Amino acid sequence: MSIEEILNMLGNETRREILSLLSREPRYVSELSQILNVGQKAVIEHLELMRHAGMVDATYKKMEKGRPRKYYCIRKDMLIEVKIGQHLYDINAFTLGINPEVLEFSPNLEKIVKKFESILRSGGSFTELRGLLDEIENEKTKINEVKRVLEYLSSRIRYLLGKEIVAEEIIEEFYRFI
Amino acid sequence: MSIEEILNMLGNETRREILSLLSREPRYVSELSQILNVGQKAVIEHLELMRHAGMVDATYKKMEKGRPRKYYCIRKDMLIEVKIGQHLYDINAFTLGINPEVLEFSPNLEKIVKKFESILRSGGSFTELRGLLDEIENEKTKINEVKRVLEYLSSRIRYLLGKEIVAEEIIEEFYRFI
Repeated sequence: MSIEEILNMLGNETRREILSLLSREPRYVSELSQILNVGQKAVIEHLELMRHAGMVDATYKKMEKGRPRKYYCIRKDMLIEVKIGQHLYDINAFTLGINPEVLEFSPNLEKIVKKFESILRSGGSFTELRGLLDEIENEKTKINEVKRVLEYLSSRIRYLLGKEIVAEEIIEEFYRFI
Repeated sequence: MSIEEILNMLGNETRREILSLLSREPRYVSELSQILNVGQKAVIEHLELMRHAGMVDATYKKMEKGRPRKYYCIRKDMLIEVKIGQHLYDINAFTLGINPEVLEFSPNLEKIVKKFESILRSGGSFTELRGLLDEIENEKTKINEVKRVLEYLSSRIRYLLGKEIVAEEIIEEFYRFI
């Protein structure tokens, strides 16, 4: 799975719409074609391109009547990150999941995972899950804020290191923020 | 600046190459055309599309001889994030920079910012900046790991909430990870 190919895939509105629909549930071609008002041939082409890029999978499902139907679904959860700026160009893809080692250096996260585990064990009440989701979203917002600063500092330091002198303009810009 | 438009822009290899070049320094059309081995007309088209999308800016620079030359540069630092998965579809864009409020809830980050500030004040030695950059990259790696888990949990909880029952398969999958 190449990140370049994934970006090519994401650069098309119809393909993004297909991905958005498939993220909710597996779908078959004629269904997608009808919802999106796009010809079946075009839908198949988009799906096969995304399958080739490793973003989408297809499985056959037995029907009560007639031939098995081909369902398309998202292949795996992923996060694609593109950073572009002055002295900054970086493209990354991450898969999602729980790496137990992470819990060691983030006590907040460990608390959240333990809570999730305990809610699941006790049967998973709607209210408890809803509350935990709010907590997670809150944590995500914080983390994104921290990331914005780290990426900013990283790009500024790379610039300074590239120049091998400390540019006055960077210092000025920095003090304007603080 | 629309995130949809930005994704359309990123979906083209030549445009990504242009952005990568501009991230290092401002460039003019014939220079880009030569480096990329792409016709000037095509380069101008790509640049103007990206200018229209708010990703690229143009300024005129006086030359010693002849007419002023039009330089293109990246308009501002940004982070684009695409999350796609089963029960997950989310596209976001963030600008980069320091929001002082963030420092309150991340002591690690506050330490890093203070260190950056003090290195700049003392003239910005190469070795010190290099060391700080390593620290920042390390912190970024940790944060990305935390994010991967949070996004995973968030998508799983959304799925459970959507179903309004706790699916056995999710519980099983979860315990396989822990």
